[in-house]
Amino acid sequence: MDGRTWTVGVTGATGYAGGEVCRLLAGHPRLQLTGVHAASSAGRRLGESQPHLLPYADMVVQASEPEQLAGYDVVVLALPHGASGAIAAGLSDDVLVLDCGADHRLTDPAAWQQFYGSEHAGSWPYGLPELPGQRDVLAGARRIAVPGCYPTSVSLAMAPALAAGLVDPDVVVVAASGTSGAGRAAKADLLGAEVMGAARAYGVGGVHRHTPEMVQNLTAVAGGPVTVSFTPVLVPMSRGILATCSAPLTPGTDADAARAAYEKAYADEPFVHLLPEGQWPTTAAVLGANTVALQVAVDRAAGRLVVVAAVDNLTKGTAGGALQCANIALGLPETTGLPLVGVAP
Amino acid sequence: MDGRTWTVGVTGATGYAGGEVCRLLAGHPRLQLTGVHAASSAGRRLGESQPHLLPYADMVVQASEPEQLAGYDVVVLALPHGASGAIAAGLSDDVLVLDCGADHRLTDPAAWQQFYGSEHAGSWPYGLPELPGQRDVLAGARRIAVPGCYPTSVSLAMAPALAAGLVDPDVVVVAASGTSGAGRAAKADLLGAEVMGAARAYGVGGVHRHTPEMVQNLTAVAGGPVTVSFTPVLVPMSRGILATCSAPLTPGTDADAARAAYEKAYADEPFVHLLPEGQWPTTAAVLGANTVALQVAVDRAAGRLVVVAAVDNLTKGTAGGALQCANIALGLPETTGLPLVGVAP
Amino acid sequence: MDGRTWTVGVTGATGYAGGEVCRLLAGHPRLQLTGVHAASSAGRRLGESQPHLLPYADMVVQASEPEQLAGYDVVVLALPHGASGAIAAGLSDDVLVLDCGADHRLTDPAAWQQFYGSEHAGSWPYGLPELPGQRDVLAGARRIAVPGCYPTSVSLAMAPALAAGLVDPDVVVVAASGTSGAGRAAKADLLGAEVMGAARAYGVGGVHRHTPEMVQNLTAVAGGPVTVSFTPVLVPMSRGILATCSAPLTPGTDADAARAAYEKAYADEPFVHLLPEGQWPTTAAVLGANTVALQVAVDRAAGRLVVVAAVDNLTKGTAGGALQCANIALGLPETTGLPLVGVAP
Amino acid sequence: MDGRTWTVGVTGATGYAGGEVCRLLAGHPRLQLTGVHAASSAGRRLGESQPHLLPYADMVVQASEPEQLAGYDVVVLALPHGASGAIAAGLSDDVLVLDCGADHRLTDPAAWQQFYGSEHAGSWPYGLPELPGQRDVLAGARRIAVPGCYPTSVSLAMAPALAAGLVDPDVVVVAASGTSGAGRAAKADLLGAEVMGAARAYGVGGVHRHTPEMVQNLTAVAGGPVTVSFTPVLVPMSRGILATCSAPLTPGTDADAARAAYEKAYADEPFVHLLPEGQWPTTAAVLGANTVALQVAVDRAAGRLVVVAAVDNLTKGTAGGALQCANIALGLPETTGLPLVGVAP
Repeated sequence: MDGRTWTVGVTGATGYAGGEVCRLLAGHPRLQLTGVHAASSAGRRLGESQPHLLPYADMVVQASEPEQLAGYDVVVLALPHGASGAIAAGLSDDVLVLDCGADHRLTDPAAWQQFYGSEHAGSWPYGLPELPGQRDVLAGARRIAVPGCYPTSVSLAMAPALAAGLVDPDVVVVAASGTSGAGRAAKADLLGAEVMGAARAYGVGGVHRHTPEMVQNLTAVAGGPVTVSFTPVLVPMSRGILATCSAPLTPGTDADAARAAYEKAYADEPFVHLLPEGQWPTTAAVLGANTVALQVAVDRAAGRLVVVAAVDNLTKGTAGGALQCANIALGLPETTGLPLVGVAP
Repeated sequence: MDGRTWTVGVTGATGYAGGEVCRLLAGHPRLQLTGVHAASSAGRRLGESQPHLLPYADMVVQASEPEQLAGYDVVVLALPHGASGAIAAGLSDDVLVLDCGADHRLTDPAAWQQFYGSEHAGSWPYGLPELPGQRDVLAGARRIAVPGCYPTSVSLAMAPALAAGLVDPDVVVVAASGTSGAGRAAKADLLGAEVMGAARAYGVGGVHRHTPEMVQNLTAVAGGPVTVSFTPVLVPMSRGILATCSAPLTPGTDADAARAAYEKAYADEPFVHLLPEGQWPTTAAVLGANTVALQVAVDRAAGRLVVVAAVDNLTKGTAGGALQCANIALGLPETTGLPLVGVAP
Repeated sequence: MDGRTWTVGVTGATGYAGGEVCRLLAGHPRLQLTGVHAASSAGRRLGESQPHLLPYADMVVQASEPEQLAGYDVVVLALPHGASGAIAAGLSDDVLVLDCGADHRLTDPAAWQQFYGSEHAGSWPYGLPELPGQRDVLAGARRIAVPGCYPTSVSLAMAPALAAGLVDPDVVVVAASGTSGAGRAAKADLLGAEVMGAARAYGVGGVHRHTPEMVQNLTAVAGGPVTVSFTPVLVPMSRGILATCSAPLTPGTDADAARAAYEKAYADEPFVHLLPEGQWPTTAAVLGANTVALQVAVDRAAGRLVVVAAVDNLTKGTAGGALQCANIALGLPETTGLPLVGVAP
Repeated sequence: MDGRTWTVGVTGATGYAGGEVCRLLAGHPRLQLTGVHAASSAGRRLGESQPHLLPYADMVVQASEPEQLAGYDVVVLALPHGASGAIAAGLSDDVLVLDCGADHRLTDPAAWQQFYGSEHAGSWPYGLPELPGQRDVLAGARRIAVPGCYPTSVSLAMAPALAAGLVDPDVVVVAASGTSGAGRAAKADLLGAEVMGAARAYGVGGVHRHTPEMVQNLTAVAGGPVTVSFTPVLVPMSRGILATCSAPLTPGTDADAARAAYEKAYADEPFVHLLPEGQWPTTAAVLGANTVALQVAVDRAAGRLVVVAAVDNLTKGTAGGALQCANIALGLPETTGLPLVGVAP
C-alpha cells in the first residue's frame, strides 16, 4: 500500500460540506480528487460556485447519479438528507462510501421516522473514531456514516463524563453555531442582513434532528438511558460550533476527578485537545482545522459539570471527520492530510 | 407635574452604557440631558467619543466627582463596578440616582464579597419592574439599582415558571451575548479581529458576577432556594443577549400550562412580549428597543421547560431599563420616551 | 393643518425598505401607518416577517394592487424596480405617492433604457431636498421619486465641490455597502455564510444602475457634464454605506477652500453633518438615523479632493429620505419624526 | 540541498503577522519552526496567545534581542515598524532575515522621513516576486523587506496596466480591509463592538504609510512618475483586503487589450489569478491562501480602467509573501508549502 493513492469523487461538491471535502483533499497526499458532482450545476466549472478551490476551478461538475459516480475508489456523498440511500445502493460494495448526510447514522428506525418522517435507509458504521471501540468498527469498512456536526461536538464533550459516571445522564446542551451549518440553499432567513447582528434559537424543545444521534451516542457510552435537552443557536459567523454542555454531578465528583477523566480519555487522541486549566475554547482557534478544543469546570453551587467544546462544523464536524474515517478505513495513518492548525485571527 | 421636565446628568457618558442612556434621553420628552461626565476625557467634546449622539456632540465632558454631579434632578451612574458607592454617598437624597453598575444590586453582603471581593456598598431598590411587587418598591424611590443585562433576561425568562411551580428550581442558562456587554475599555481579547468569527464561553462554572443576582431574583420569585448554572458565551455581534434557559418540568406541566403561565404573567407588560407559537426570539428584532421577546417550549423527552429570551443588553438590559425605572420613580407613565421598535435588519 | 394627521399605506412592507418606512412611521407624530401591503404574504401577520415592528405585529398584510392601496392620504411604494409605474397610475392624483423604487428617478429615457432595459415610466420630482433648489420642487408635490441609497451619499458628498468648482468633473467613487441594500429576496450569494468575512465588488465598470442617477444629480449641480466611475463593494454588515469619493483638484483649491465650501453648503442642513477636522465618518454612527456624516481632505501629492460620506442605506438612503420629503410635501417641519441619533455601538 | 531543512525563528510570534508565519510554517516541509520570540510575553506558552497553533502550543516564548535570535538559519521579524533595524544589525550576514515590518521597504530616505518621522534604516531587496525582475533580486538574498499588505494588492493590481501603457499614471485606490491589519495591540477604536457594523475610512488624503511604497513600486513599473490617491477603509471582517483601483484609459485601450495585458502578465504566476470574465474577486475565496484574485473592467463612459484585487492581508499580504520569498532566496521551488486554497465559506 505504500505510496498508493485512491481516486475520490465528491457529490454535492457545489455545497458547503462538499466544498470542504474538496478543500481538504487538496492537502491530502494519498487521496486524489478526480471528479466533482452535484444534483444541479452539471456542466459548469467548479470555480463558479467554489472560487476558493483554485486547483480544481476548471473541473466540470458532473451529474450525481450512480452511473456517473461509478469508477472511483472512494465516493463522498455530501447531499441533503434522504438523497444518499438510493445512490449508495447503486455503488459497488468495494467502493468506500462516506455519507456526510444523515441517512445512515441512526440505528433505530423509529427514531429516524420520528425526526425525519421518511423510510429508514439503514445504519452504517458510525464515523466518530474517538468514541470507545469505534476505530475497530471503521477499520476496513466500506460504508461509513459521517456524524452530524452538533453530535460530534456534544458526544466528544460528554462521553468521558458519562463513561466515568461523573454525572447523571441528564444532559443539557446549548450550542452556538455558524450559519454554514444550515447549508447553501437560498433562504431568506439566512440572508446576511438577517444573520449579522442576530443570535436566534431554532429547533427548540427537543425537535432538532441531531438530538437522537446525540442520545444514541451518549447512551452507548453511558451504558444506560441518557436524555439530552438540545438547543441550537445561530450566531453571526460562517463556521464553528461552540457547545456548552452540562449535567448534574454525581456524589463525589470534584474538579480534579473531572479533569482526570478527560485527560485520560483524550491523552492519545490526535484531534481532541483538553485545554490547559483556565483557558476556554473559541471557535476561532479551530477554524478550518480537524480539531476539537475542550474545557471542563465544576460548578459546585449549581451542582453541575460544565463542558465546553469548540469545533469547525465543516471540518471536524463534517469533511475532516469524513477523511479521518477514510484514513482509518483504508489503513492509512489516521492523521494523514488533516490540518491541526486553525486559521486565526 | 404635568409638562414638568427633569434635568439629567450622566456619568460614564463616554462608555457604552452611558452613551446608550444619552441616546435614549434624546427621545425622552420629560428628561433632559444637561450634562455629561466621565472619569477620563474631561474637557473634550462628547462627539469625539460618541459620534452617533449628534444633538449632544458639542457638549463638553466634565469630571465625575460628586461636586460636578451636584445640581441635577436625576443622576445616572454608568461606571465600572466599585465606583458608584462613593459618588452616590456624595449626592443629595433628593436626587434620583440610577446606578447602572453592580454596586447596589445584591442584598447579601456575603454574595457581594464572594463575587466582587470588595466591601459591600449596600443595596438599593432593584430596578426590574416586571418582577412581582417591584413597581411598588420603585414608585417614588430616589436610589435605584439598575439590573445587570444577563439577570434582566434570565429573571424575566424564568420567573413565571418558577412562580407557577412549573419547574424544579434548578435552572440552566447559556446566554449568547454581543461584545458591548464587556465595556469599552481597550482589551486585546475583545479586538474586532478576535471577536469576529469567534464564539467563546467565559466565566464558566458559576463564577460570573451576574450569577448571584439571578439567584437572588429567582429565589424571591420561587419562594425558596434556586440554583442557576450560568454560562455566558461571547458571539460576534455588538449588542444583544439571547438567553436559553431551562429547568426540569414538575409533574403535570405541559405545553399549554407553560404557555398559559407566561401569557398571564406578561399580558399587561408593555415591554415583555411572548411571541406567537412557533416564532422564536432573535436579538436582531430588539436592537435598540426596550423590549424583551420570549418563547417557551416543553421538551417532553428531556423533561425540561425551555425558555428563550432576547434583549438588547444596552437598552432593556441597561439604559432603557434605567429610564423605565426613572419614569416609575418620577410618577411618569412607565413607557414614556422608550422605544418599542427594534432597528432591523 | 395644526395637529392634522395623515394616513399612510406602505406596500412592500415585508421587505427591508418597506419595513424601515414602518419603523420610522412608529416614531412620526403626524403620519399614521394604517395599512401594510405586499406582493406576496397577503393574509399573514406583519409580525411574522417583521418581528421588530412590535406595535404593528398584528396588522394583516394586504395585497398590493391599486384598489387595495386606495383611500390613504399617503402611499409609499417600496417595491422592486419596474413595479411602481402601473400601481402609481392607478392612484388618485390627490394622494401623496412616494416611490422608493427606481422607476421615476431618471429624467432621460435613454439612460433608463440603457440601465434597466425596459420602458421608462417617466420622471417625478426628485426627493433629495439638500440639492440646490430641490425643496421648492418638493413643496406640495404629490408624486416623489425617492433617491437611491448610493446616489444619496455620493450626490451629497460631491455636490458642494462641483458647485464651487473645486474639482474637475471626473468623479471616482468606491462605496462599501451593507447587504440589506440588495434586498430581502433569497439569493445564495447573499447568504450569511457567503457574506461574513467577505468584501466583494459588483456591478463594476460603470454598469451599476445607480450610476446614471449620480451623473444626473451631479451634472445638474456642476452645470456641465460630469463622469462618475462608480464601484460598489459589499461588506459584512447589515446596513450602511461608506462612500469614498474623489476628483482632481482644480488649480487653487486647497484644504481651507474645500472645508469652507462644505461648511457653507451644509451649515443649515439638519441632516448633513460635516464632521470636525480630523474625525472621519463611520457607518456605525448613523445606523438608523436620517443623517449623513461627511469629511473632506485634500491630497496634494495625488492632486485630488477626497470626500467620505456615511449614511444608513435604509434610513437617509431610503425610508428616512422618503419621510423627509413627505414632511416637505405636506408642509410639515422637515425634521418631523426623523431620528438624528444613530444606534451605536 | 535535497531534503535539507532550515531552522526558523519568528519574533513577534504572539502577534497576528507572526502567528500567521507560524501557521504557514506548520505546513512547510523544509522550513522548521524551532523558536518563538516576542518583545513581551517571554516565558509564557505560545498556546496562551495563539491557541490555534496547536503543534506549537507548548513552545515557550523567548525574548526578542539579537542574542536570543542567533543560531537560526532563518529569522522572521514580525514587529512594529522601527523595531527591525537594530535587531537586524545584530544578526549574522549568513542568516536569511525576512522583515515583515516597514523598516526596509522604502528606498527613498525622504519618503521614509515624511511618512514615518524617524531615521531611515536603509532598504533591502523588496519581496514582491511578481514585479518585473524581482525574482533575480531575491534569489540568494539574505535580507528581504516583505511588502506591506496594501502595496501587495495594489501593486499587483496596477502593474500590468501601467507597464503596458493602458492607463495614465494617476491611480485612485480605495481598499476595504479587515481589522487584523491594524495589529493586535489593544485599542478602543478596534474593539469588536466598534468594528462590527462599521465601515470607516482612515489615513485619508495621502497620509497612510503604505502610500509611498505603492508609488515606489508603480513608478518603477511605469518607468515614470505615478501618483496614487489611496484611501483605506476598515470593514467588519478579520482578514482580507479588497482593493478597487482605477486610472484613466489611454487612447486606444479597450477591454480586450486590458484583459490581454493581464493574462500575459500573470499567465505563469502561481499565486496571481485573473478570474474568468464576469467573475469578481471576493476576500472570502482567498482567506488563508497565498493567492491574489484579480479582475479588470473598462468603464467606457467614465474613461477608466478598473481593477479589483483580493488578498488575505496576513497570508499573501504578509506571512505567505514572506515565505514565498524565503523559498526563492533559499533555492526552493517558489510554491513550497504555501496554500493555494482559501478557507471558505
